[in-house]
Amino acid sequence: MKLYDLELSGNCYKVRLFAALAGIDLELEPVDLPGGAHKRSPFIELNPWGQVPVLADDGVVLRDSQAILVYLARQYGGNQWWPDGAAQQGEVMQWLSTAANEIHAGPNAARLIDKFGYPLDKERALAVSAKVLPLVEKHLSEHQWLALGRPTIADCAVFPYVATGWEGGVTLERYPAIRAWIDRIKSLPGYIGMPGIK
Amino acid sequence: MKLYDLELSGNCYKVRLFAALAGIDLELEPVDLPGGAHKRSPFIELNPWGQVPVLADDGVVLRDSQAILVYLARQYGGNQWWPDGAAQQGEVMQWLSTAANEIHAGPNAARLIDKFGYPLDKERALAVSAKVLPLVEKHLSEHQWLALGRPTIADCAVFPYVATGWEGGVTLERYPAIRAWIDRIKSLPGYIGMPGIK
Repeated sequence: MKLYDLELSGNCYKVRLFAALAGIDLELEPVDLPGGAHKRSPFIELNPWGQVPVLADDGVVLRDSQAILVYLARQYGGNQWWPDGAAQQGEVMQWLSTAANEIHAGPNAARLIDKFGYPLDKERALAVSAKVLPLVEKHLSEHQWLALGRPTIADCAVFPYVATGWEGGVTLERYPAIRAWIDRIKSLPGYIGMPGIK
Repeated sequence: MKLYDLELSGNCYKVRLFAALAGIDLELEPVDLPGGAHKRSPFIELNPWGQVPVLADDGVVLRDSQAILVYLARQYGGNQWWPDGAAQQGEVMQWLSTAANEIHAGPNAARLIDKFGYPLDKERALAVSAKVLPLVEKHLSEHQWLALGRPTIADCAVFPYVATGWEGGVTLERYPAIRAWIDRIKSLPGYIGMPGIK
């Protein structure tokens, strides 16, 4: 199973992290984003969106980090990480949307601007971060994990850009419950980090 | 089963549309967003995020339209709308992320600015729309539906803001495959519209 990967991408790291936690073997295929390989053939035929990560597994090709998490957890992870029941799937899914929406537009965007020079709106990225992080903090002050009272793909999806947001000026000083949750994630068996995670 | 609802919200309409297509009865509870009811008690206890829709069903309370779609489809819709298999869930999930990310930040944001006066960046909303719609067009020029070759919750999640984007200046003149897909959705048994869908 091959993951088309970029080491510095938090979206790719979501997948690498989950695979490490769940004991799933990934063959990493680095994509030369600085060289523009993601916008050219042959990668662009694999993913017309021109983005990493992409997972290729026995004829299944998926773009989007959340979709890859759902696939891997369903196929190889058992019910622990992505459950079978409707209410449980809904509970996890709330946080997959939060990852794709607010975490993407907030701490991820701030980091893209500061670290990679993306032409995005820094003020907006900080405003979205300042709105979403207190909600995550409130939730984590009442819960050990984002969903189901245990580690799930919800944590894997939200964690990377929350933990690396400081590279875009989104710090966690005012969020002790988030910092404690980050420590819990780092203590999970199999945990791996990425550059930018302190 | 109660849906906390706003008629003009495309996120609420995603849920109303899917329920109509799948034959699921919803009791609609309108929330007075112009009056600020979504930011006050008792609604804010139900959803600390202060957003509609919220679904309350027999003790299950969910925020986020994509999460509600997954829940309803899993609980009441059978495998037709949200399948059981890993590869199939991954395929649908790609588009749920697209709805939460690019469609949200593109046509939805443009409409929020023009129709409701939200202080968002119109240029950015148009740029995101101009990037995502050609990708949706390409996909729909090769497929009848977004995923699995049949209507799924992926279509319900992406359709509302694509079809109402013209209210924010995001028109579909250059996207014939998207227009044909919209017509296919409108022809589904049980289909209901919302204000702004031509």
